[in-house]
Amino acid sequence: MARVLITSGPTRQYLDPVRYLSNASSGRMGAALVEAAIKVGHEVIVVTGPVEVVYSSAARIIPVVSTEEMLAACQQVFAECDGLIGVAAPCDYRPARVATAKIRRTGEPLSLDLHETPDIVATLGASKRLGQWLVGFALESEDPRFRALTKLQKKSCDLMVINHVSAIGATDNSVEILDPNGAIIATFAGSKTDVAAGIFHVIERRLML
Amino acid sequence: MARVLITSGPTRQYLDPVRYLSNASSGRMGAALVEAAIKVGHEVIVVTGPVEVVYSSAARIIPVVSTEEMLAACQQVFAECDGLIGVAAPCDYRPARVATAKIRRTGEPLSLDLHETPDIVATLGASKRLGQWLVGFALESEDPRFRALTKLQKKSCDLMVINHVSAIGATDNSVEILDPNGAIIATFAGSKTDVAAGIFHVIERRLML
Repeated sequence: MARVLITSGPTRQYLDPVRYLSNASSGRMGAALVEAAIKVGHEVIVVTGPVEVVYSSAARIIPVVSTEEMLAACQQVFAECDGLIGVAAPCDYRPARVATAKIRRTGEPLSLDLHETPDIVATLGASKRLGQWLVGFALESEDPRFRALTKLQKKSCDLMVINHVSAIGATDNSVEILDPNGAIIATFAGSKTDVAAGIFHVIERRLML
Repeated sequence: MARVLITSGPTRQYLDPVRYLSNASSGRMGAALVEAAIKVGHEVIVVTGPVEVVYSSAARIIPVVSTEEMLAACQQVFAECDGLIGVAAPCDYRPARVATAKIRRTGEPLSLDLHETPDIVATLGASKRLGQWLVGFALESEDPRFRALTKLQKKSCDLMVINHVSAIGATDNSVEILDPNGAIIATFAGSKTDVAAGIFHVIERRLML
């Protein structure tokens, strides 16, 4: 049996003690993948951003808030894992400055300088050892297959799951699985539970020996 | 019996189809106030941002996403209501431009121009007719009583509930209720259910005839 690291949910990048940048990721797809992996006997570590969803109690849960925290938590455990499923939607920009007190409304526009946050899957991909595998998720609103293949290569992934913006926060999903040759090797649509079972079956068949 | 309008939850201001500015408001305090009002026989209309919390089925629920939508929904119904409890945490900045496609990472910083969104409670307060009442909520990290009193006056509120940044997304809360003379007329601490019952009791005693 394998030990699988799953990142899940959104992350938040705070501007001040109240306001943040984020996205509508609910952690539902992550929770469904955790269930799918545990059901067939694997050990699962979940690094999750703030979500209301409840993960299987059989998994080890590491809660985080920001993208930097998610990366640090993953780096602590990835070396002991056989593979990564990066289904989280980490916030990929952070304010250059974070105010320690709540920013006050003045009636004037506010200019916010944003820097990119580290790419978690790419960072872990750059450190992967022989036998470790990575599955990424790509959420593209335009030209999804081409951009997903570029991401697969840049992030050293073994498979990339392409899903659509409409999947965020929803209960259903519709995905395509892309291999490193640019071939779509599977497509699944339905409840996130069913789609997760399908994705996990492909991962087992293609990446776990 | 009165008809009470309650705003609840956060709002989101999207930068592109995926990323948004928001805050961690869960709608729990709003849901507890809805329960408290319904329990003593009032009619409740809830205008709520995106939350996982479930409101009483006895309330009329109007779901919205952005601050502009929350204001528009409130303006449609406020004239028929006896009062407003503005417990929502509307996102008070919006990107000057919203991208129609997902903004691509380029490795470079991104500069975001933010404009203030309309102040929902202040806008409704400016239109209030004789006999209508407004209760606002102030979340301040610094100098809370002074700033809350300024807000009470600016927003034409009859009472202002002061709570702390730590209340956001939590199950417990600790509040002070400020009257237009700057006096703290009540303080409540405990579960949001208990705190909501206390706040609603003050509203009934002071504002409902």
